[in-house]
Amino acid sequence: MLDKFKDECGVFGIKPHPEAANMTYLGLYALQHRGQEAAGIVSSKENKLACVKARGLVSDVFTREQLDRMVGDAAIGHVRYSTAGSNSVENAQPILINCQHGQIAVAHNGNLVNAMQKRRELEKIGSIFNTDSDSEVILHLIAKSRKSNLEEAIVEALSQVEGAFSCVFQTADKLIAVRDPHGFRPLMMGTLDEATVFASETCAFDLLDATFVRELEPGEMFVVNNLGMRTSSKPFEARPMRQCIFEHIYFARPDGFMFGEYTQQYREDLGVMLARESGVDADFVVPVPDSGVSAAVGYARESEIPFAFGLIRNHYVGRTFIEPKQSIRHFGVKIKLNPVRHLFEGKRVILVDDSLVRGTTSRKIVKMVRHAGAKEVHMRISAPPTTHPCYYGIDTPTRRELIASSHSTDEIRRYIGADTLEYISIDGMLQSLRNSDPEHYCKACFTGDYVIPFPAEGGIEV
Amino acid sequence: MLDKFKDECGVFGIKPHPEAANMTYLGLYALQHRGQEAAGIVSSKENKLACVKARGLVSDVFTREQLDRMVGDAAIGHVRYSTAGSNSVENAQPILINCQHGQIAVAHNGNLVNAMQKRRELEKIGSIFNTDSDSEVILHLIAKSRKSNLEEAIVEALSQVEGAFSCVFQTADKLIAVRDPHGFRPLMMGTLDEATVFASETCAFDLLDATFVRELEPGEMFVVNNLGMRTSSKPFEARPMRQCIFEHIYFARPDGFMFGEYTQQYREDLGVMLARESGVDADFVVPVPDSGVSAAVGYARESEIPFAFGLIRNHYVGRTFIEPKQSIRHFGVKIKLNPVRHLFEGKRVILVDDSLVRGTTSRKIVKMVRHAGAKEVHMRISAPPTTHPCYYGIDTPTRRELIASSHSTDEIRRYIGADTLEYISIDGMLQSLRNSDPEHYCKACFTGDYVIPFPAEGGIEV
Amino acid sequence: MLDKFKDECGVFGIKPHPEAANMTYLGLYALQHRGQEAAGIVSSKENKLACVKARGLVSDVFTREQLDRMVGDAAIGHVRYSTAGSNSVENAQPILINCQHGQIAVAHNGNLVNAMQKRRELEKIGSIFNTDSDSEVILHLIAKSRKSNLEEAIVEALSQVEGAFSCVFQTADKLIAVRDPHGFRPLMMGTLDEATVFASETCAFDLLDATFVRELEPGEMFVVNNLGMRTSSKPFEARPMRQCIFEHIYFARPDGFMFGEYTQQYREDLGVMLARESGVDADFVVPVPDSGVSAAVGYARESEIPFAFGLIRNHYVGRTFIEPKQSIRHFGVKIKLNPVRHLFEGKRVILVDDSLVRGTTSRKIVKMVRHAGAKEVHMRISAPPTTHPCYYGIDTPTRRELIASSHSTDEIRRYIGADTLEYISIDGMLQSLRNSDPEHYCKACFTGDYVIPFPAEGGIEV
Amino acid sequence: MLDKFKDECGVFGIKPHPEAANMTYLGLYALQHRGQEAAGIVSSKENKLACVKARGLVSDVFTREQLDRMVGDAAIGHVRYSTAGSNSVENAQPILINCQHGQIAVAHNGNLVNAMQKRRELEKIGSIFNTDSDSEVILHLIAKSRKSNLEEAIVEALSQVEGAFSCVFQTADKLIAVRDPHGFRPLMMGTLDEATVFASETCAFDLLDATFVRELEPGEMFVVNNLGMRTSSKPFEARPMRQCIFEHIYFARPDGFMFGEYTQQYREDLGVMLARESGVDADFVVPVPDSGVSAAVGYARESEIPFAFGLIRNHYVGRTFIEPKQSIRHFGVKIKLNPVRHLFEGKRVILVDDSLVRGTTSRKIVKMVRHAGAKEVHMRISAPPTTHPCYYGIDTPTRRELIASSHSTDEIRRYIGADTLEYISIDGMLQSLRNSDPEHYCKACFTGDYVIPFPAEGGIEV
Ligand SMILES: Nc1ncnc2c1ncn2[C@@H]1O[C@H](COP(=O)(O)OP(=O)(O)O)[C@@H](O)[C@H]1O
Ligand SMILES: Nc1ncnc2c1ncn2[C@@H]1O[C@H](COP(=O)(O)OP(=O)(O)O)[C@@H](O)[C@H]1O
Ligand SMILES: Nc1ncnc2c1ncn2[C@@H]1O[C@H](COP(=O)(O)OP(=O)(O)O)[C@@H](O)[C@H]1O
Ligand SMILES: Nc1ncnc2c1ncn2[C@@H]1O[C@H](COP(=O)(O)OP(=O)(O)O)[C@@H](O)[C@H]1O
Ligand code: SF4
Ligand code: SF4
Ligand code: SF4
Ligand code: SF4
Ligand SMILES: [Mg+2]
Ligand SMILES: [Mg+2]
Ligand SMILES: [Mg+2]
Ligand SMILES: [Mg+2]
Repeated sequence: MLDKFKDECGVFGIKPHPEAANMTYLGLYALQHRGQEAAGIVSSKENKLACVKARGLVSDVFTREQLDRMVGDAAIGHVRYSTAGSNSVENAQPILINCQHGQIAVAHNGNLVNAMQKRRELEKIGSIFNTDSDSEVILHLIAKSRKSNLEEAIVEALSQVEGAFSCVFQTADKLIAVRDPHGFRPLMMGTLDEATVFASETCAFDLLDATFVRELEPGEMFVVNNLGMRTSSKPFEARPMRQCIFEHIYFARPDGFMFGEYTQQYREDLGVMLARESGVDADFVVPVPDSGVSAAVGYARESEIPFAFGLIRNHYVGRTFIEPKQSIRHFGVKIKLNPVRHLFEGKRVILVDDSLVRGTTSRKIVKMVRHAGAKEVHMRISAPPTTHPCYYGIDTPTRRELIASSHSTDEIRRYIGADTLEYISIDGMLQSLRNSDPEHYCKACFTGDYVIPFPAEGGIEV
Repeated sequence: MLDKFKDECGVFGIKPHPEAANMTYLGLYALQHRGQEAAGIVSSKENKLACVKARGLVSDVFTREQLDRMVGDAAIGHVRYSTAGSNSVENAQPILINCQHGQIAVAHNGNLVNAMQKRRELEKIGSIFNTDSDSEVILHLIAKSRKSNLEEAIVEALSQVEGAFSCVFQTADKLIAVRDPHGFRPLMMGTLDEATVFASETCAFDLLDATFVRELEPGEMFVVNNLGMRTSSKPFEARPMRQCIFEHIYFARPDGFMFGEYTQQYREDLGVMLARESGVDADFVVPVPDSGVSAAVGYARESEIPFAFGLIRNHYVGRTFIEPKQSIRHFGVKIKLNPVRHLFEGKRVILVDDSLVRGTTSRKIVKMVRHAGAKEVHMRISAPPTTHPCYYGIDTPTRRELIASSHSTDEIRRYIGADTLEYISIDGMLQSLRNSDPEHYCKACFTGDYVIPFPAEGGIEV
Repeated sequence: MLDKFKDECGVFGIKPHPEAANMTYLGLYALQHRGQEAAGIVSSKENKLACVKARGLVSDVFTREQLDRMVGDAAIGHVRYSTAGSNSVENAQPILINCQHGQIAVAHNGNLVNAMQKRRELEKIGSIFNTDSDSEVILHLIAKSRKSNLEEAIVEALSQVEGAFSCVFQTADKLIAVRDPHGFRPLMMGTLDEATVFASETCAFDLLDATFVRELEPGEMFVVNNLGMRTSSKPFEARPMRQCIFEHIYFARPDGFMFGEYTQQYREDLGVMLARESGVDADFVVPVPDSGVSAAVGYARESEIPFAFGLIRNHYVGRTFIEPKQSIRHFGVKIKLNPVRHLFEGKRVILVDDSLVRGTTSRKIVKMVRHAGAKEVHMRISAPPTTHPCYYGIDTPTRRELIASSHSTDEIRRYIGADTLEYISIDGMLQSLRNSDPEHYCKACFTGDYVIPFPAEGGIEV
Repeated sequence: MLDKFKDECGVFGIKPHPEAANMTYLGLYALQHRGQEAAGIVSSKENKLACVKARGLVSDVFTREQLDRMVGDAAIGHVRYSTAGSNSVENAQPILINCQHGQIAVAHNGNLVNAMQKRRELEKIGSIFNTDSDSEVILHLIAKSRKSNLEEAIVEALSQVEGAFSCVFQTADKLIAVRDPHGFRPLMMGTLDEATVFASETCAFDLLDATFVRELEPGEMFVVNNLGMRTSSKPFEARPMRQCIFEHIYFARPDGFMFGEYTQQYREDLGVMLARESGVDADFVVPVPDSGVSAAVGYARESEIPFAFGLIRNHYVGRTFIEPKQSIRHFGVKIKLNPVRHLFEGKRVILVDDSLVRGTTSRKIVKMVRHAGAKEVHMRISAPPTTHPCYYGIDTPTRRELIASSHSTDEIRRYIGADTLEYISIDGMLQSLRNSDPEHYCKACFTGDYVIPFPAEGGIEV
């Protein structure tokens, strides 16, 4: 049962590069944390685009032989976090189609708010859907467009959808990257020798030794043609910028740069702010690793309470395991985290984590820490309470499951069994931004203030 | 390199049956010889149709868990022989789509002659294609139909296509079987307890202990609804019957009944006719197993020349093997067939096979038999010379590769190295039919007399 | 449940050959019918013998990479039919050990009668056993030998064991083939260019294009050294020859030569004899394919009753399948064999099979044939009644399960539901031998006349 | 290429417990860091011990079905780090044998110093070796023992070997744990309900919710019989205690207790000591994660220089990846670690790692950090220079590859490209022990002072 907001996708694209498919593979390897359920690459083989995709981690999905057969100079790739019930390979990406404009492939990160409505309209005029994904709606709209020029067709198609999309398209001769006008999800641009490279996060560039150039701007469309020539345009109606602040808080890898901020620095600053807002006396500051580490470092520095690695994250997290039949106390959480027992004995500890969603995991951690002997447990969360679901490309529990949507902080404190529980304030979160404008961020999951009204029936995921 | 005409598909459907998916699995197991490259089943899980398909044999594709999860009372299945270059899982069947008429799945056996033209038309109005298959054209035409009733939509769609189709459709509440007006490919109907069962060949019924009822007639559409009620109609314009005579000669399993004939009986009768038409003195009649066995039995009986199993077919044919680096004489054919050496020494033998397509295999067999000591080798073929490709659902080499399209029988004889070579005559082939009308058969690959003009650019395969 | 006697192993060896491992792979491919449960090859890599073995068919066990890494000029191989309960990879062969004589590997076909006793003795002086196999006993005896010369050590070891062994040994510099003094199991010798080749059956030579030279004689030891030099000796005390007549009747592939007879010819002759001994009037002679085919051909020829392929053997026999939950009539046998229905209707048929062991399969076949409409079913068996288990390398049911050990032919007839049932007589079986001396054969499973007294506690299998 | 000392094994045992095999599986899951190449479990099935082992991680090796079939109330398990060239499944453990004492299985952690000599002796009297492992020597010595009692046989066997062994033996009715008289490798004892549990580290108890009782003492043998009764003895000649100090420094998981010390606490104390011994001014203390984290925390605390997570360890370390063809700068290290770029720009950093073996990895890290902009790089190592190989169960590079065996610290500093390089002193390392006696530790790899003279020809590994 999901007890985290989950980033749903990572995208990558490169052109022109003699080892395009291999570079895409490595880019996806670096972006793996954005989606562990399925991975795919589209590249060209004998003048036709071809797609290899399957459920599983990047390291399991692709073979050397497959990559070697992908000889084209351009490629796009996708990693996907797939939600329950829709985890079939059909929903894996990139999606590759044939239509009047020829072959088109897309790797999409985001969620459309009006996908279901568009889908209904398209079905009414005879369209066929093979997947549940929003991305297929985009492809249908492109296929339907009468524009003779493919870029124009893409613009026409994307002008009809609302919501979050950071997409990389590949056609026979072009690589096209687009970011929605609100700019919900990130999309980075870099260069590697002659090639232009796109990726959801800068860590993909680091691994490839590509040079980070800049982020695509909200509403920007960037085309790389067969000669390597680049064209940028802003073909969509302008909209208020709404970059996802949760990328900063949790989704993105800490070793990156996004929306004008250094991720780790921002997380440490959140910890500093949290220490100022809700200091408490204790013997140790202990992070819930790995996502709580940066904030805990900031908290410890600011509070001058010693930092201690009191919870050890198992290196084999993510590997399947066979459950015992008999019940084992705290088993679910211990398979991931183990307390450094002697540290807790008789001590007052501050646990720092990035977010608290359903509360079930925090409850188990607090219990485990108390069982290890902690005298007092103070939980500090470096995000505000998550009261609303996200419709912009993040997989969240339903509103009802978000414990903060219907419970006060004190009720939650009692539920998780902590002595004190504090979240960072929304203001504190925004003031911690060093370089970017707080107005340019989406904070809807904390405030309920959705820039695009959410659909009555619930979103569908990419 | 293909040296056989290859049946391209087998289809199956059942409704209502408490073990629908499992019965479909077994039906496909029995139809495996109609397609070894990919297999798939559509059934329902939690009120939604779901598809499991993959490359491989039926026994490799499905797991018990998958079948157990397919709990609906209806299912369809497909086995596919996939031609070079299009052997991706995307081309596997059944194909399952969502459209304005809801979910529809199809298992299709056959080839459309105007598929490419229809595809172009559909793309022009914005349709998307995910596969190279003709079947997707059919689904698009259904999705486009404005008929409110699904059966009518199917009729409207199929009325626009030309060619061979024996299809089984599954929707949320119906199972619909259709055979094209020419009746190229077979489609059998049976019953199993309350259920109606459809299958390409009767052997599927034998395995399931289902009762064979009758063949679907050319142009017939047969609907089984949620209450198990059955309705038959003939909604298409009538066309001349053109059942594939090559199913009798080679494709179908010998233990079945089709188009009014008992397959094995017909094959033996072809052998009898061949012995009459082109008798030759020899010490033994030896079949090229397994497909040449029945005709050889007939030939031996008629000619009163002893029948001998001089070539042994390896039980592990179809298993992959790793080729040696050094060349081994006749290796390619020996991995499949081995001569019973002492039998051939100094003997005159008549080899009987069902067809001779490119001639390369026969050449290897003749060489191998001579190397085993045969003094005279007389090749007899229980089909006429294959001079033309098939556009109706059979995978054939290109016209140029059909040795009989450009070489006389004597030239072919010399090529394969036989002392004599004789094919059955077209007349002999037709006169051997016991119960059915020779007029009702397609023989285009022997005569070039195509009932539907073939497309300029070559067909695409299902 | 086993309803056949099962050959337990096939062995292969080659030296010196530049592609030794690859040739061994192909030899095992040809010998696959002698054991389908596990396969293994020993060859050398970087001057050390290395073994690749696993459960599964030859085609599944080895990869091209593995074979490519086996670069030595000598190799041995083994296929194994593994009995219930001992099917772990540990029991797969070849077995490779280190001992004072260096590295030794063995591929063994046969069963030792005094294995258990020797094992106990060895354990008492501190030996360790890793498998249940008799072959390990042989290796221990070699390791214990004080002979400085390895051949002498092998002779010393094999002189202490009783029973059946056709073995191929490989050491750092030699290939050594040995056949036990009774000669129970076959062992063939051939040449391929410079190399000497050993194999259980000649079909392995056919596939490799090796030249069959002769069988190893009972009690013969044949050594190929590093220079390719060959030495033959007869180092064991002479014993009465007891070649397994069941190899002729059923185990061996029909396209071979063994113990001085052509297998298929002998099987046809058995059919001829059977027709003479127990003729009956009928409309058709129908083999139980594939093992009953040759005898049926002989029976039909002699009786002048038409031969008909009334039972079709599924090409995918051996592939796993998922059983249905509901019971299907004759399912167990139909997955392997299907009747050609119209042939049987109202007809009197003679079914010919090679052997009848527990009777369960024959019973199902008779039922299925009657259900297909047969009026009379006459079962003819081209082996005498199997009344005793084999202790010489064949896996047989226990004595109690051998229906003929405790039931009269008429009781068995009633059990299987046939109108008549006849076995060939022991005399008839022996008289059918054309070139070899009936005295030189083991017939213990038909007569109970064991040349080596069988062990009280039951044999252990190789 | 190995640039770490590598722990070679983890062992586990439990008896009596209704879910013995499943508990062993989880125990191995917790001990996975002690060996990632192969895993195995021995338990009983139908009154016989049976072994499941294979190459791969615990999560890949075992299936639910296998565990479910292991129904006995006792089990032992092993994880193994396998050195190059001997990574075949044969070398996986536990090893299970049959001998005069019945079935015996062993899971062994350690290396024998006189294994090769004993092996030679055993081979001379006819013993067979199936693996390269020392453990097989122990089993042979047991099998050879004339003692009628198994415990006595084990004592007799182990009295003849020299070196490191922490072993868990399983027989039909007993579980026996033994630790060598020097006590090189750890062996922990705990209880879980009725059961006695043994494990290499306490983290296995934590996961199972077992209670840690105490370590086995050097030279102790602990027997659990079928009634759950426990007997401890000290049957070996006493030897100087030589517990491996490197377990504290690097091998053991930080969340445990061993040899009287809390692992994480000791590592932090090493960091503190290091700061005192070789302080240097800098902007940040950055650990090389994860093994450098604890020492870095201590260093930062003592030096009052801010701690920063400047290197991010990829969560998918250990997954295979396909290398690009073109070279990518620092690729090898970046696949594991990525610098937080902005942090380093223009800064002076202290990098803290646990050990420096061949120097190649440190060199890459220093380069990568400089490339990220660091102005000064000061490397601090929380172990003394590793000048000598280990012969007591740790896989080390050869002496020549140990850079500190032949280079001064300054030479190494230049090689890795650091501005300064300091190791902790041997004294500092020893003084950091809080509860245990420095005399009781082995430090041979730092001092060359081997308590047992090492073998001339080099050890062989378990
Ligand atoms: N399951 C685990 N969870 C947390 N830490 C572990 C685990 N296993 C091992 N460790 C610790 O991690 C360190 C090894 O990890 P790391 O430094 O990332 O890799 P490397 O072996 O390359 O140095 C060891 O010090 C060990 O104590
Ligand atoms: N590779 C092969 N090719 C042809 N025939 C074979 C092959 N292997 C074994 N045989 C023959 O087939 C017979 C066994 O096949 P079959 O009767 O179909 O199965 P069963 O073992 O159930 O009786 C044996 O008599 C054997 O001689
Ligand atoms: N499952 C089956 N069991 C028995 N016969 C089959 C089966 N499947 C196909 N056949 C028959 O076998 C023939 C094909 O086998 P064969 O001649 O051995 O291979 P090829 O396709 O190379 O000619 C066809 O004539 C078909 O009727
Ligand atoms: N490959 C990676 N290497 C290092 N950190 C990562 C990596 N991928 C994701 N992260 C960070 O790790 C955090 C998630 O890890 P963790 O907290 O251990 O798991 P959980 O998702 O259960 O919270 C995220 O904050 C993310 O920024
Ligand atoms: S709702 Fe929350 S998670 Fe979703 S885009 Fe906005 S800030 Fe990000
Ligand atoms: S062309 Fe030949 S193979 Fe094709 S349908 Fe007609 S008869 Fe059959
Ligand atoms: S007992 Fe029968 S099967 Fe065994 S060796 Fe003798 S003849 Fe062959
Ligand atoms: S030599 Fe080093 S690694 Fe080996 S046991 Fe001694 S301290 Fe440990
Ligand atoms: Mg986390
Ligand atoms: Mg054929
Ligand atoms: Mg048979
Ligand atoms: Mg490390």
